[in-house]
Amino acid sequence: MIATVVGVGLIGGSLAISLKEKGVANWIIGVDHSQENLAKAQELKIIDEGSTLEDALQRSQLIILAIPVDAMLKALPSILDKIQPHHVIMDVGSTKEKLLQLVAGHPKRGRFVAAHPMAGTEYSGPEAAVRNLFVQKTMVLCDVKNSDEDALELIESMVDKLNMRLVYMNAEEHDLHTAYVSHISHITSFALALTVLEKEKEQGRIFELASGGFESTVRLAKSSPDMWVPIFKHNRSNVLDVLDEHIHQLQQMRELLAQEDYDTFYKLIQKSNKIRKILK
Amino acid sequence: MIATVVGVGLIGGSLAISLKEKGVANWIIGVDHSQENLAKAQELKIIDEGSTLEDALQRSQLIILAIPVDAMLKALPSILDKIQPHHVIMDVGSTKEKLLQLVAGHPKRGRFVAAHPMAGTEYSGPEAAVRNLFVQKTMVLCDVKNSDEDALELIESMVDKLNMRLVYMNAEEHDLHTAYVSHISHITSFALALTVLEKEKEQGRIFELASGGFESTVRLAKSSPDMWVPIFKHNRSNVLDVLDEHIHQLQQMRELLAQEDYDTFYKLIQKSNKIRKILK
Repeated sequence: MIATVVGVGLIGGSLAISLKEKGVANWIIGVDHSQENLAKAQELKIIDEGSTLEDALQRSQLIILAIPVDAMLKALPSILDKIQPHHVIMDVGSTKEKLLQLVAGHPKRGRFVAAHPMAGTEYSGPEAAVRNLFVQKTMVLCDVKNSDEDALELIESMVDKLNMRLVYMNAEEHDLHTAYVSHISHITSFALALTVLEKEKEQGRIFELASGGFESTVRLAKSSPDMWVPIFKHNRSNVLDVLDEHIHQLQQMRELLAQEDYDTFYKLIQKSNKIRKILK
Repeated sequence: MIATVVGVGLIGGSLAISLKEKGVANWIIGVDHSQENLAKAQELKIIDEGSTLEDALQRSQLIILAIPVDAMLKALPSILDKIQPHHVIMDVGSTKEKLLQLVAGHPKRGRFVAAHPMAGTEYSGPEAAVRNLFVQKTMVLCDVKNSDEDALELIESMVDKLNMRLVYMNAEEHDLHTAYVSHISHITSFALALTVLEKEKEQGRIFELASGGFESTVRLAKSSPDMWVPIFKHNRSNVLDVLDEHIHQLQQMRELLAQEDYDTFYKLIQKSNKIRKILK
């Protein structure tokens, strides 16, 4: 099968590598608005060729959209307009409600499968693409009842070959849960980086002292605003909700520390330790 | 050399393993208020024998205190009372000002070297001890001008053999900088775990969806309150200061999202990306 990956960055590039390696596709066409990224992806052998979307549609069956969620809102309807009945379109976006509302009434909605692989790193661009990014990770498929049976089967079979776990959700559930398990982590990391950059003027000291704990809570702050601002925008209401709760929890800890109520502080930490049970 | 490690948990246990492996000590005595931990540490071959502090002082030259910082405040003065001129005492605690103030006037202050290895994990107890925890990590030595030259030399030589980088600071600087690069990361992680546990009632969904990003920002929330409450207590003023700034940054992001000012939000994320330059 010939597959096209639109957006040859971290996720699109890593998928391209995996599709080829696992035998899902034997030829990968890359499409990207940046000619530099396309050239880089070809140089790194992530894709077999770079081309235009029109040409790619002529020759490939599977089209994967791996572009920021705001670009996806613009691109998906016009791609659906152009496709043939044998095409299968899949996205990998981090938000789903707005996108699925937008194409709900499209005559070719059935050819689209909404997907979100729960995997990534804080880096972006084709150089960030890595092998095995998706192995043993979760692929969420949303509102699959609105996808044609054969389109869904093709994607499910792909997910299986990529050695991923499948989870089904509706778009609302998806956007709610990802606010908790992904989007808020990025917000706290951005804010933590700003806090340290603001207050810690001796940045050499950070470099000398920072160990694993700091690195792990702050590394997501390296993430690209091009990807993340659209996600927060699309999932604004859920993100605000979780963010308010998070600020409330921090204020609570702050007050306990201010009042030197260490017994209650101890109990709060014990309560937070319960995350042990649900973290892998 | 015979060395004694008081507190055979994550840090003490990992140090015991390294001291032996790097040839700093050829025999390690473990001291711990928990007989169970001592037995476990011996079973895991982390220590050669378990004993009492009194016996350990009779037979060893180097004594390393790897106990929570509040327990350290109680233990250090009485240990200094008991030691002989050939003894060298080192701590590994995460806060320094209170401890160094406490022993400032002690006649045997010179035998003590205040140290803080910038390394750890979210786990505790002897089972959490690991090889190579300290390799290429930073060891901070505080107020070394108040330590005897031979005591300092012994510790510096140990740090060198452990393949660690040495950094010198005074106690005030240390407590300020660690509030930024370590203590605040733990607070945000505890608060993030509480947020998710509070709001996300479908905990199975967290398990299914949580990927690397969530795991890395929340893993510190597995950390023990026995270790961390005393640290926050001892470094209360610095931690409150950083925490206030962090809450302020989060509130700022919250307002931008509420007002849908995505341009400013974008710029804030770009600014936070500068952490790339100073993170390893």
